[in-house]
Amino acid sequence: MSGRPLDVLESSLDDPVTVHLKDGTTYYGLLAGYDQHMNLVIDPETAEADRVPDEEDFAVAVEDTTIIRGDNVVTINA
Amino acid sequence: MSGRPLDVLESSLDDPVTVHLKDGTTYYGLLAGYDQHMNLVIDPETAEADRVPDEEDFAVAVEDTTIIRGDNVVTINA
Amino acid sequence: MSGRPLDVLESSLDDPVTVHLKDGTTYYGLLAGYDQHMNLVIDPETAEADRVPDEEDFAVAVEDTTIIRGDNVVTINA
Amino acid sequence: MSGRPLDVLESSLDDPVTVHLKDGTTYYGLLAGYDQHMNLVIDPETAEADRVPDEEDFAVAVEDTTIIRGDNVVTINA
Amino acid sequence: MSGRPLDVLESSLDDPVTVHLKDGTTYYGLLAGYDQHMNLVIDPETAEADRVPDEEDFAVAVEDTTIIRGDNVVTINA
Amino acid sequence: MSGRPLDVLESSLDDPVTVHLKDGTTYYGLLAGYDQHMNLVIDPETAEADRVPDEEDFAVAVEDTTIIRGDNVVTINA
Amino acid sequence: MSGRPLDVLESSLDDPVTVHLKDGTTYYGLLAGYDQHMNLVIDPETAEADRVPDEEDFAVAVEDTTIIRGDNVVTINA
Repeated sequence: MSGRPLDVLESSLDDPVTVHLKDGTTYYGLLAGYDQHMNLVIDPETAEADRVPDEEDFAVAVEDTTIIRGDNVVTINA
Repeated sequence: MSGRPLDVLESSLDDPVTVHLKDGTTYYGLLAGYDQHMNLVIDPETAEADRVPDEEDFAVAVEDTTIIRGDNVVTINA
Repeated sequence: MSGRPLDVLESSLDDPVTVHLKDGTTYYGLLAGYDQHMNLVIDPETAEADRVPDEEDFAVAVEDTTIIRGDNVVTINA
Repeated sequence: MSGRPLDVLESSLDDPVTVHLKDGTTYYGLLAGYDQHMNLVIDPETAEADRVPDEEDFAVAVEDTTIIRGDNVVTINA
Repeated sequence: MSGRPLDVLESSLDDPVTVHLKDGTTYYGLLAGYDQHMNLVIDPETAEADRVPDEEDFAVAVEDTTIIRGDNVVTINA
Repeated sequence: MSGRPLDVLESSLDDPVTVHLKDGTTYYGLLAGYDQHMNLVIDPETAEADRVPDEEDFAVAVEDTTIIRGDNVVTINA
Repeated sequence: MSGRPLDVLESSLDDPVTVHLKDGTTYYGLLAGYDQHMNLVIDPETAEADRVPDEEDFAVAVEDTTIIRGDNVVTINA
């Protein structure tokens, strides 16, 4: 649960994440990929996923594979 | 459907994509090219394309080959 | 008509382009040069040019050779 | 207690930190990781932690492991 | 009159240029120097200069040697 | 008292400094560390310090060791 | 009086300069140092200095050695 930021992303692959962006929007889905710039790939959550985030009420659950450019990211809850 | 961000772009070449920019505009078209900065080339969609994006109602369908400088990109739905 | 962003610029040399900037202005002219940062050189269109862009009504046709610093660019219609 | 910025982060691992971001929000938790860009990993504070920050009244105590992208950071109170 | 952006600057040395900045100001003078970041050195125009720019009415004619940091530049009319 | 910016920081270690940030806040304390990005470490001033800055009335005297990310800095009075 | 931007700074060492920042403030003093990022060191003007800048009425004459982080700089009048 601890470690360097990219290690935390690596260990969160295929897990649900909540991503807060600088423009105020929040995306929710499964972390499908990332790179060293914190560019992210978020996939729609499958029915088997069981985590209900506290932020669910205002987060946007992605409906398609979504690439987020890293320089928009404020925080990632992994 | 998963992988690193640039791998997802590579696998999306010639497919329809929706690109959300920091200024609030959204472009829609076929992904014709990209580079490591997420600079993008979007081509007009041909009649044969069959995907109707949910965002179609507010997205701008490109009419010419359009280069988007990567630092404007927030998300890419591939 | 497709390819990497800088390849599209290379193939557009001497052609008319429309450049949208982050400050909302739009420049129109012949692409005379570029570099890897998308810094651009736009020349005035000559009388022989035959393309009438849709954006002609609000685009600024450059009157002198104009260097545009790349970090201002949102999109280039080539 | 003194030294180069990354040395101070290194010596603060597992300690409570308060992070002020450019958007005005403040996060509070245990420093679980960092990298050379000041990307941070903040873990929820455990019951054993005994520090009560002055900023507690307006700081957000993280509830999950939270990655903060470094370019959002203004100050870190270690 | 055409070429890569820095080549155009090179060929414009000692010539009058008009520089538009992101803060809306416009400077006018002789291009005395530049570097690869588009940092510029603008000298006051001498009496012998004969170009009257269209923008003369709102451009600021520099009175001293002026260094402009490149990241402020939008366009340079050379 | 003169020299390159990082040399001035080096010679100011353990001295009181006033740091003005882009968000309008001002921090005051002892310079405990820095790096090449102008990331700073500011420690609380000890009782033995004798400098009373002119800005004391509006500057925030740091109460804990405070890391300031360099890209927020406007000026440092050393 | 002409040359590359950093050459102009080099030749202006110990001379009075006026520095305009992106936040609208203007500093005035003797150029005591600089680096390749245009980070600057400005020293208070001594009584022997004889230049009275046109901007003197609104420029802030530095009272202490002041480091200015280069990314805040718009123009330097040397």
